[in-house]
Amino acid sequence: MMIIMKTNATPQQTEAVIAQVKSMGLSVHLSQGVEATIIGAIGETHSIPTERFEGLDGVDVVQRITQPYKLASRQFHPENTVLPLDGFTVGGDEISIMAGPCSVESRSQIIETALAVKEAGASALRGGVFKPRTSPYAFQGLGEEGLELLAEAREVTGLPIVVEIMSQVQLDVMIKYVDVLQVGARNMQNFNLLRAIGESRTTVLLKRGLSATIEELLMSAEYILAGGNQRVMLCERGIRTFETATRNTTDINAIPVLKNLTHLPVILDPSHSTGHADYVSAIARAAIAAGADGLIVEVHPDPAKAVSDGKQSLKPEKFAQMVNQVGQIAQIMGRRLATVQGEYTKQGWA
Amino acid sequence: MMIIMKTNATPQQTEAVIAQVKSMGLSVHLSQGVEATIIGAIGETHSIPTERFEGLDGVDVVQRITQPYKLASRQFHPENTVLPLDGFTVGGDEISIMAGPCSVESRSQIIETALAVKEAGASALRGGVFKPRTSPYAFQGLGEEGLELLAEAREVTGLPIVVEIMSQVQLDVMIKYVDVLQVGARNMQNFNLLRAIGESRTTVLLKRGLSATIEELLMSAEYILAGGNQRVMLCERGIRTFETATRNTTDINAIPVLKNLTHLPVILDPSHSTGHADYVSAIARAAIAAGADGLIVEVHPDPAKAVSDGKQSLKPEKFAQMVNQVGQIAQIMGRRLATVQGEYTKQGWA
Amino acid sequence: MMIIMKTNATPQQTEAVIAQVKSMGLSVHLSQGVEATIIGAIGETHSIPTERFEGLDGVDVVQRITQPYKLASRQFHPENTVLPLDGFTVGGDEISIMAGPCSVESRSQIIETALAVKEAGASALRGGVFKPRTSPYAFQGLGEEGLELLAEAREVTGLPIVVEIMSQVQLDVMIKYVDVLQVGARNMQNFNLLRAIGESRTTVLLKRGLSATIEELLMSAEYILAGGNQRVMLCERGIRTFETATRNTTDINAIPVLKNLTHLPVILDPSHSTGHADYVSAIARAAIAAGADGLIVEVHPDPAKAVSDGKQSLKPEKFAQMVNQVGQIAQIMGRRLATVQGEYTKQGWA
Amino acid sequence: MMIIMKTNATPQQTEAVIAQVKSMGLSVHLSQGVEATIIGAIGETHSIPTERFEGLDGVDVVQRITQPYKLASRQFHPENTVLPLDGFTVGGDEISIMAGPCSVESRSQIIETALAVKEAGASALRGGVFKPRTSPYAFQGLGEEGLELLAEAREVTGLPIVVEIMSQVQLDVMIKYVDVLQVGARNMQNFNLLRAIGESRTTVLLKRGLSATIEELLMSAEYILAGGNQRVMLCERGIRTFETATRNTTDINAIPVLKNLTHLPVILDPSHSTGHADYVSAIARAAIAAGADGLIVEVHPDPAKAVSDGKQSLKPEKFAQMVNQVGQIAQIMGRRLATVQGEYTKQGWA
Repeated sequence: MMIIMKTNATPQQTEAVIAQVKSMGLSVHLSQGVEATIIGAIGETHSIPTERFEGLDGVDVVQRITQPYKLASRQFHPENTVLPLDGFTVGGDEISIMAGPCSVESRSQIIETALAVKEAGASALRGGVFKPRTSPYAFQGLGEEGLELLAEAREVTGLPIVVEIMSQVQLDVMIKYVDVLQVGARNMQNFNLLRAIGESRTTVLLKRGLSATIEELLMSAEYILAGGNQRVMLCERGIRTFETATRNTTDINAIPVLKNLTHLPVILDPSHSTGHADYVSAIARAAIAAGADGLIVEVHPDPAKAVSDGKQSLKPEKFAQMVNQVGQIAQIMGRRLATVQGEYTKQGWA
Repeated sequence: MMIIMKTNATPQQTEAVIAQVKSMGLSVHLSQGVEATIIGAIGETHSIPTERFEGLDGVDVVQRITQPYKLASRQFHPENTVLPLDGFTVGGDEISIMAGPCSVESRSQIIETALAVKEAGASALRGGVFKPRTSPYAFQGLGEEGLELLAEAREVTGLPIVVEIMSQVQLDVMIKYVDVLQVGARNMQNFNLLRAIGESRTTVLLKRGLSATIEELLMSAEYILAGGNQRVMLCERGIRTFETATRNTTDINAIPVLKNLTHLPVILDPSHSTGHADYVSAIARAAIAAGADGLIVEVHPDPAKAVSDGKQSLKPEKFAQMVNQVGQIAQIMGRRLATVQGEYTKQGWA
Repeated sequence: MMIIMKTNATPQQTEAVIAQVKSMGLSVHLSQGVEATIIGAIGETHSIPTERFEGLDGVDVVQRITQPYKLASRQFHPENTVLPLDGFTVGGDEISIMAGPCSVESRSQIIETALAVKEAGASALRGGVFKPRTSPYAFQGLGEEGLELLAEAREVTGLPIVVEIMSQVQLDVMIKYVDVLQVGARNMQNFNLLRAIGESRTTVLLKRGLSATIEELLMSAEYILAGGNQRVMLCERGIRTFETATRNTTDINAIPVLKNLTHLPVILDPSHSTGHADYVSAIARAAIAAGADGLIVEVHPDPAKAVSDGKQSLKPEKFAQMVNQVGQIAQIMGRRLATVQGEYTKQGWA
Repeated sequence: MMIIMKTNATPQQTEAVIAQVKSMGLSVHLSQGVEATIIGAIGETHSIPTERFEGLDGVDVVQRITQPYKLASRQFHPENTVLPLDGFTVGGDEISIMAGPCSVESRSQIIETALAVKEAGASALRGGVFKPRTSPYAFQGLGEEGLELLAEAREVTGLPIVVEIMSQVQLDVMIKYVDVLQVGARNMQNFNLLRAIGESRTTVLLKRGLSATIEELLMSAEYILAGGNQRVMLCERGIRTFETATRNTTDINAIPVLKNLTHLPVILDPSHSTGHADYVSAIARAAIAAGADGLIVEVHPDPAKAVSDGKQSLKPEKFAQMVNQVGQIAQIMGRRLATVQGEYTKQGWA
C-alpha cells in the first residue's frame, strides 16, 4: 500500500502516519521524492482498509498495490476453479445452462418447465421459492412447499436445482433441499448471510449487486471463501445505469475482467440483465463469446401467466433455439455444453 | 393503471389482457382511440406489479396512475408524521441532530463522544456495534458489548441511541437496548429484516440504498408500515454515480421530493453522502435549507485513530460549529434545534 | 400521445389542456375514466416535445405512444439500410471492421498500420487528425496534414478512411478527403454539427454520447436524416457508469435494442468501450454474437509509443487473431467478413 | 506523477518506462520497494496525460500527485476570482441571481419577464436564442432577432444578459450583444468552441456536462483560461444518474468541492438540476447554504405557454419568494444579494 503525502505535509504528519503503519504490524519503506513523500506499507495489507490512512492529517492519496481480496484472486490461485455438480462441471470446458421459472408456482408448472428445459439442453433447474419483492403486496413465494416441488422436479429430470436464499434463517432448510444456493443481487452485501453460507459446504451462485463494483463482488466472494466454502460461482446480472430502454445494463466487460482477476467460474443472467425476452438470446450468445462459463435463464411455459418476471421469461421453444445458438458459439470458444446424464444423486463434492 | 396496447395489437390480445385484469379483481375501463387501445385497470392496483401486464402479448406500456405504496404516501395521509423520541420529536418543528462515531470502540471513546456531541447540541447518539464491512478482514464491531457501552453513554447524557441492525437474528437484543434501529443502505431491500422490524414497535431510521430510487425507498418503508410499525424515518445518505471526487453523490433533490411524496420524516447523512469531513458542514446546511427534518453525522474525538470512517468524521469542535450554523438555517426555515432536557426514560411512544 | 390528468384535476384544467392540444394542430380523443381523465393527442406528435404538456396545471404524466423519431425508426422503414462503401457494404450480410490508430502521428506510422490492418482483414482504416482532448495541453492532432497522410494510406491499401470531425468549420476539408465522417461521443449532441452533416451526402459514423440514452442517439441520427443525408451508421462505444474497472461500460444490450428500433447499421467500438487492450477481443466477439454489423478498433504498431490511447490499442498480431475469431462468430450468425478487393475509387453512393 | 510497476515487472520494462519519462522532459525519482518499484516523474506533469505511461508493459497504476489543471487550480491562485459585471460582482461577497425564460419567444414576453425578475431582485437576465434541442423538430430559437430583443430588455432594465452559445460560428454576433456567454452542458467538451471563447475577453458561464466529472469541468475551464480569457464562472446544473423522480440529480457536493479546488466563481442552476418548478426554491436555498456564489433560474410569465422548459419555470411571484428566502440564507453565510443600480453601460472589465 502506498501512502502519498500532500506536498505541504509536515514531518510530524509523516511521522504520525509511519507510526500508524507500524502499529498495524506493517513495515515501512520511505521514499522522499521532490514532489512528495511516499510511505510504502508492506505486509498483509489486503486485510487493511485504505481508510485507516486516508483520514490522517497530511495524507493525499492511498493507493493499493495488492488487491484487497486474496482467496478469490487469480494472483494466488492461477488455475481455474472447476466446480463439480451432478454429472457435469462448472468453470472448466463445459458451459452450463441453468434454466427455469422466476417463481415456483405449482407442481405442474415446475415439472413441465423442468422437462422442457432439460429437453432443450439445460444442465440445471432454477426456481424461486422465497422471493425478494420490491413491494410488500407482491407474491412472496411458496416457501418450503416450493422446495419440495423443486426436489420432485429434480427427481423426475435429474437436473440439480438452484434456489435463491434470502436470509440466514433459511439456511438449514435450503441446504436440505438445494444443490446450488443463489445469493441475489439485493443480498450481495448481506454480510451475515455470506458468513453463514461460508460455514456451509453447499455450492453458491453469488450475484453481483445492481450497483456493486466488480471489486465489491470479489470482496463478497471473499467472505464466503474465508469461511472455508470454496464452491463459489459469480454471476453478472446487469447493473443500474441511466439507460431505461432495458431493465438493467448488462456489464459484458465484467466477463473478461472477472476471468482475469479471479479463478472462480463466471455466469451471466441475460434475463435480468436485459429484462426483456426479445433480447435474452442475443445477450446469451454475447456472454459465451466473451468467455462466460455459463448462463442462468428464466423460462416459463406460459410467460403471460407468470406471477413474476413474465416479461423477461423465454418460452421453451425460444429457449431451445437459444441453447442451440449458444452451443455453436461454445464450440468456437473450444468448449461444449454440459449435459446431464444418468441418475441424479445429490452426491456432494469430495 | 393504464395498459396501452401496441398499435398493431389484435382484438384477441386485447381480450386476453382484459381477462387478466378481471382475474385479478380489478374492473376495466376500455378506451379505443385512433392510435391505440387503452385498458384502464381500476381497483386496488397499488398492490399489483406492472409486470403482471407488461409480459402479455400486444402490450406496449403499462403506466401507473396511483403510487405503488399507500401507507407511506402523503396522498392518503396529508399531515406530517411527527415521531416522539425522548424529550423531543422528529418530523415536526424540531430539527434533530443524531451524532456519534461510526463504530463504538471503547468505553472511554463512546462516553467522551456522547458528552461532546450533547454539549454541542446533538439530540441523539449514534454508534455502530454490528458493522457491515465490504472486507471480511475489517473490524466487524463490538457486538452486544458495544450495546452496553452505548446504554451507559445514554445514561450519562440522556441522549437516546441510534444503532444499525444487520440481520433479523439481532432484533431481540437490539430492541432491548436501542431507541432507534438504523437499517443501513446495504439492507434497504433485505425484505426479511424489514418484515421483522415491521412487527416490532421500535422507531426505525431507514437509509436509502446506494442505488435505490426514491420510489424503492418508499416501497421499503411500506414493508415496515404494512407490518404495523408506524415509527419510520427515511434517510438520504448519498447515491452511487460516476463522480469520484466524493464517496457518494448527495441527492439533495430527494429532500423536497420525499417531503412532497410522503408524510414520514426525512433525515440526511452528510458524512456518508460526501465521505469527507471537509464537506460535511456545507451539506448539512444545505439539507436543512432544502427542508430536511434532521441530520445524522459521524463525530469522533480523534478521527485519525478511528477504526472506521475516520476520513469523514468531524472532530467535536467542528461539529459544534456545524450545529451552530444549522441552527441559524433552521430558524430561517421557521424551525428550531431539538434539545434534550431532563432525564432519559426510554419511555416509548403512546 | 396520452396526457393523463391528475385525479384531482379540475374540468377547467382539462379544458385548458385540450385547447393547447388543438392549438398545435392535433385532434383530441377524450377518455374519462373512474380514476383519471386521459386526453389522447392524435396527429404528427413525433415532432412535439412532451414538455409542451407536462408543465400544464393538472397534468400528471405524458406518455408517448409513437416514437419521437420517425426517419430513424424501423416502424416506418422495416428493411435494414445497407450502406455501400468501396467494394463492400455495411448493414447487410457483411461484417465490416474499421481499424487503425487513435491519432495519425506520422507517414510511416499510418502507412504501416494501414498495411497491417488490411493484411489482417480490416475493410476500412480509421485515424484521428483533429483530436478532442480533455486537456488543453495534450496532443491535438496533425490537422489537414494528417488527412493527406490518410489519403496516401488509402491509395496504398485501397481501404476507405474513417475520420472524426469536431466542428462544422472542418466540414469542407473533411469531405474533400474522407469516406466516412465520424461524429465522436462528445459531439453527439452538437446539433449545429449534425445539421451541417445532414446537408452533406457523406457517410457518417455517429457515436453514442457517453451518457446518452439510446433514444437520444436515435434523435441525433434523426437530425442528420432530416437534413437529407441517409448514410448514417450508429456506434455504441461504452457508457459512463459507476464501475471503474474498465474505462467505460460496454452497453451490449444496445446492440439488439438498436437493431429492433432502427433500420440503420450498428457498429461497436470495443477499444473505447473497455479502454484496455486485454479486453478488446472478448468484447469484439460478443458484439458480433449479439448482432452488431461491424466493429471499429484501435490498432497501433507500437502501442507503447502511441501519443494517445496506447493502453487500449491492439498490436497488429493481436488484431489479426481478433479478426479471425470474429470471422468464425460471423459465420454462425449467417454473415461473413467484408473484404476490400481491387482498386479504391472513392466512388460515392448513387 | 507516480508510475507504480507491477510486482512482476522486469528490469527491462522499468528501464523502458524511465526512458519514456525522460524523453518527455521530466526527471526521474526511482524508488525500489519490496512490493513494487515506483517511478516518480517530476516536472511539468500537469500537461502530460497519464495514458502516456498506462499503456507501457509492466505498468500497474499511474497516480497523479499534482492536478492536471493549473490555471483553474486554487493551489496556484489561492484568492477567489471576483468577476465584475455591470454594477455588481460575481465570486465575492455578493450573491448574483440570473433569471429569465428558457427561450426568448417575443418582445412582450422578454420585456415583461425582465421587468418582473428585476423587480424580484435578479441581477442579470438569461434567455436562449440558439436552442440545443434533442429533437430536430422542436423550436430552435429566434436567433439574432432574439439577441436584439434581449438587448432591448437590457436597455429597459439595466440587467446584463446571459445567452447560450452553441457553435464558434456564432461567436462574433454573440459578443456584439451579450454580457455573459453561456456554454451549455452538451457543449462542455466542444473543445473548438472553448478555444474560440478563450481567445475572446467576454465573461463565460461554463456549465458542467450532464455526465462530466468535476475534474473534467475544470479541464474545460482550463481550455478557456489557457486562451487568455480569465472571466470564467462554473455552473453545476445536475448530473445524469439512475434516479428518475427528477430530471437530473443536483450534485450539491460539487459546490464545496469546487470551492475547494478552484478560485473561480461557482453558480447553481436549480431549474435544470431538478426539472420541476416545485423543487427549484428548495434547491436554490440549499445551493447558497452550501456556499454557491449565485444562481441561474428559469422564470416565465406563463409557464404553461412556454415553448420550452415550462415544467421547470417559476412564475414571477414564486421567483420573488425564492429570492427573498435566498437573501436570508445569504445573510447567514455573511453575504448579500447583488443588486443592479443606476444605468446599464456594458462597460467591460478593467
